[in-house]
Amino acid sequence: MCKNPKLIEADDFSFSGLDIAGNTKNRLGSKVTLLNADQIAGLNTLGVSMARVDLEVYGLNPPHTHPRASEIFTLLEGKVYVGFITSIPENKLFSKVLNKGDSFVFPKGLIHFELNIGKTKAVGIAALGSQNPGFNSVADAVFGSNPKIFDDVLAKAFQLDKKIVGWLQSQF
Amino acid sequence: MCKNPKLIEADDFSFSGLDIAGNTKNRLGSKVTLLNADQIAGLNTLGVSMARVDLEVYGLNPPHTHPRASEIFTLLEGKVYVGFITSIPENKLFSKVLNKGDSFVFPKGLIHFELNIGKTKAVGIAALGSQNPGFNSVADAVFGSNPKIFDDVLAKAFQLDKKIVGWLQSQF
Amino acid sequence: MCKNPKLIEADDFSFSGLDIAGNTKNRLGSKVTLLNADQIAGLNTLGVSMARVDLEVYGLNPPHTHPRASEIFTLLEGKVYVGFITSIPENKLFSKVLNKGDSFVFPKGLIHFELNIGKTKAVGIAALGSQNPGFNSVADAVFGSNPKIFDDVLAKAFQLDKKIVGWLQSQF
Amino acid sequence: MCKNPKLIEADDFSFSGLDIAGNTKNRLGSKVTLLNADQIAGLNTLGVSMARVDLEVYGLNPPHTHPRASEIFTLLEGKVYVGFITSIPENKLFSKVLNKGDSFVFPKGLIHFELNIGKTKAVGIAALGSQNPGFNSVADAVFGSNPKIFDDVLAKAFQLDKKIVGWLQSQF
Amino acid sequence: MCKNPKLIEADDFSFSGLDIAGNTKNRLGSKVTLLNADQIAGLNTLGVSMARVDLEVYGLNPPHTHPRASEIFTLLEGKVYVGFITSIPENKLFSKVLNKGDSFVFPKGLIHFELNIGKTKAVGIAALGSQNPGFNSVADAVFGSNPKIFDDVLAKAFQLDKKIVGWLQSQF
Amino acid sequence: MCKNPKLIEADDFSFSGLDIAGNTKNRLGSKVTLLNADQIAGLNTLGVSMARVDLEVYGLNPPHTHPRASEIFTLLEGKVYVGFITSIPENKLFSKVLNKGDSFVFPKGLIHFELNIGKTKAVGIAALGSQNPGFNSVADAVFGSNPKIFDDVLAKAFQLDKKIVGWLQSQF
Repeated sequence: MCKNPKLIEADDFSFSGLDIAGNTKNRLGSKVTLLNADQIAGLNTLGVSMARVDLEVYGLNPPHTHPRASEIFTLLEGKVYVGFITSIPENKLFSKVLNKGDSFVFPKGLIHFELNIGKTKAVGIAALGSQNPGFNSVADAVFGSNPKIFDDVLAKAFQLDKKIVGWLQSQF
Repeated sequence: MCKNPKLIEADDFSFSGLDIAGNTKNRLGSKVTLLNADQIAGLNTLGVSMARVDLEVYGLNPPHTHPRASEIFTLLEGKVYVGFITSIPENKLFSKVLNKGDSFVFPKGLIHFELNIGKTKAVGIAALGSQNPGFNSVADAVFGSNPKIFDDVLAKAFQLDKKIVGWLQSQF
Repeated sequence: MCKNPKLIEADDFSFSGLDIAGNTKNRLGSKVTLLNADQIAGLNTLGVSMARVDLEVYGLNPPHTHPRASEIFTLLEGKVYVGFITSIPENKLFSKVLNKGDSFVFPKGLIHFELNIGKTKAVGIAALGSQNPGFNSVADAVFGSNPKIFDDVLAKAFQLDKKIVGWLQSQF
Repeated sequence: MCKNPKLIEADDFSFSGLDIAGNTKNRLGSKVTLLNADQIAGLNTLGVSMARVDLEVYGLNPPHTHPRASEIFTLLEGKVYVGFITSIPENKLFSKVLNKGDSFVFPKGLIHFELNIGKTKAVGIAALGSQNPGFNSVADAVFGSNPKIFDDVLAKAFQLDKKIVGWLQSQF
Repeated sequence: MCKNPKLIEADDFSFSGLDIAGNTKNRLGSKVTLLNADQIAGLNTLGVSMARVDLEVYGLNPPHTHPRASEIFTLLEGKVYVGFITSIPENKLFSKVLNKGDSFVFPKGLIHFELNIGKTKAVGIAALGSQNPGFNSVADAVFGSNPKIFDDVLAKAFQLDKKIVGWLQSQF
Repeated sequence: MCKNPKLIEADDFSFSGLDIAGNTKNRLGSKVTLLNADQIAGLNTLGVSMARVDLEVYGLNPPHTHPRASEIFTLLEGKVYVGFITSIPENKLFSKVLNKGDSFVFPKGLIHFELNIGKTKAVGIAALGSQNPGFNSVADAVFGSNPKIFDDVLAKAFQLDKKIVGWLQSQF
């Protein structure tokens, strides 16, 4: 539902809190704080969003896609290994170690990741070309879906024993 | 490079061979034959493409994305288990067993798969909403990229021992 | 109205029946079965649709346009003469006789047609680059509109006697 | 080929002559003068074009489509009967008699027409939502294509005797 | 809210009155009469709109932007100086004196203007590539916003004394 | 010209230096460092860009537009007064004082500004929804164009004496 235009105010275009580190107390040691049209109603239809990425030492923003947006990631603090993989048949990896102030592009829909390889926390900021980019972690999607995918699919796709698949499905 | 408009002919808009089964003699027992703007130059800028999917008995079109297109998949022959997974945080799996003549939608950029669970070969045909949809197999991208992704990323993302990661990277 | 996201299920992304031949017992001997966002609610905003085309012997999918989509047509069975016409001033016809497994492209909005010239029924499948491509038969639109177009328009446009126009308007 | 940006000048964004009546000495008594990216190079990628439409007394801009644009038509002088037809299955005609200063909308890709039913010349101006809208006259496309469409298609589609079809094909 | 499709009629696609000169009895001696989706509901989603521009002798359509549309402006009567300015760092002015029948393009979002420099009233017609192009007069926006912008911003941006800024803010 | 796909490397997707403060030794005390497709070739067609904004104490990023992009601005350091103005007839100002970590949205094509009202330097980062958003400073465009706009336009639009206009034109 759209808000009555006469009632729209500055707060519909603003958000506070991107200076606060996300909670990285999780298995991956990372947290993405996304400002999309759910957080800022005024973004609706505007074709852009922004995210803060926090990475503990050795923290990982795992291989994931944004189904509806390209991204530019700029590292504000730390040392981070980033990369994306192109489509079949090349499956080419474009990767780089980013230092403070370095930026990297992740084209729309491609799998990409960020790993903190420095000795301090790392913080990055991302620009995304959609007000609703979406976030699909590859491992969460395939091993942690609700409900689970038939293990036949995963065993065959990943060349893993079904026992390992079953164990993985219980972990995600 | 664009072709001289005066030299364009019907063959620039046509393709032959979608009646021929793709070669499924591979580990996955599947083959995708895609008609995009590389195969049919006249498709350029037109926003649509088509694919034939062949699946041996137990063949799998593994979890993959099309970074730039949604898809409708219609099963022409066989019995196939299909599904896609939504974005974080739900990671919801929408799946179904398709029989001959059944269709299923895979929204743009989302991970999806097709597994032949019938007793005969299966054949499907797909419509895609881009002349260059792209095809990213998740497992090929993460374990089979060129060059390889640092195993730290994969071990942590997939909760796998580095030895298994290394072995997987040697398989893809 | 959009469905409550929490209530969405796999059936919102699926359809059954594209294996069933459309009823071609009509003047043209043809039937188009279209899967668009009316048939599959989950297609909404996804930019793709699919259609099955059945043609009796000598059946015709008459000159028509899809106002909002390009199309790839693949012939599954039969022998079919297809073509499209470009814009003024060239009015160039690109046409081809398709056999089983042949594909042809119809660019967005252009008038095109399919005529079964084989000795058996023909079946084709089409991918279209919009969830709501539209279907405008040229003859139905101009001679069979509701209400009718003033016959002056049609007599002059088609260089036909008004008696013939009137008769045609009574037929469509 | 794009022009060197440093050499671009005001003339690349301008055109002269839309005040001059188009030559309507033709069978239809009408002439469309279109300003698209061919006439004004600076329009390229800008998503808009404009046209002048001249209609003799009883002149007709025959049923046609713009495959890539919607249109607003405003009558500057005269009295004109206009209309467009929606898609199958309704084939609904929306029509109106326009007087000086009246405007009418023709949605993207739909067949529409303008007939001068007044006692003086009529002049209209049209805005189109593409720099390359295209112009497809229905009768010219189906009966006047180069090369000709097999007469079977036209006889069956229009319910006309093949002799009439042949005669029509020789006229366009 | 969308209208029930069954109740849509020709009047939803039409407008009367573009032959009537806009009221130019204002400080600028100009009036823009815009036909967008507010005036013609049927324009919604169609990507085009049209406007009439009236200019008294020495009347000015002041520097303004259309945030969501490119424009083609055609002069129907009079003699008008028009121009647009490109982005930083060039700030290049492309300008021209238009006479009756001359057209000029204003690319999407760029500041442009029209000044009547002839000895008679001037009338122009504009095509715009959005059903909701928007109209932002630069001077009205910066000096006449509701509420007012802090004068620090304007004094510094325009290199004006705060007294002049205050006076200007009281005028708009 | 597009680069040979086989020669594309990670550097085509990266940029270094966004950690370095822009040179604000200018009249406005501000500097925008923009990463668009000119700086990062790999951004081409991807629909997103990023910028760093540096503001001295009392520094101003003056009223400006991005003709082809919406923006989210997040303040990394400092205290900044920001706002944008909507279209005619409301000319409504939506403004806010941002502190560290606050974000604000500037919709596509609308005039907006940022003024440092704190006691320290301010730094912001912006996400923009185009690979080529453009940057049009209102005052630079109208008073500093090359060549100059006729002073009649500016005197009348801004209600300024021609002497002041002439002086302003000599300053920009």
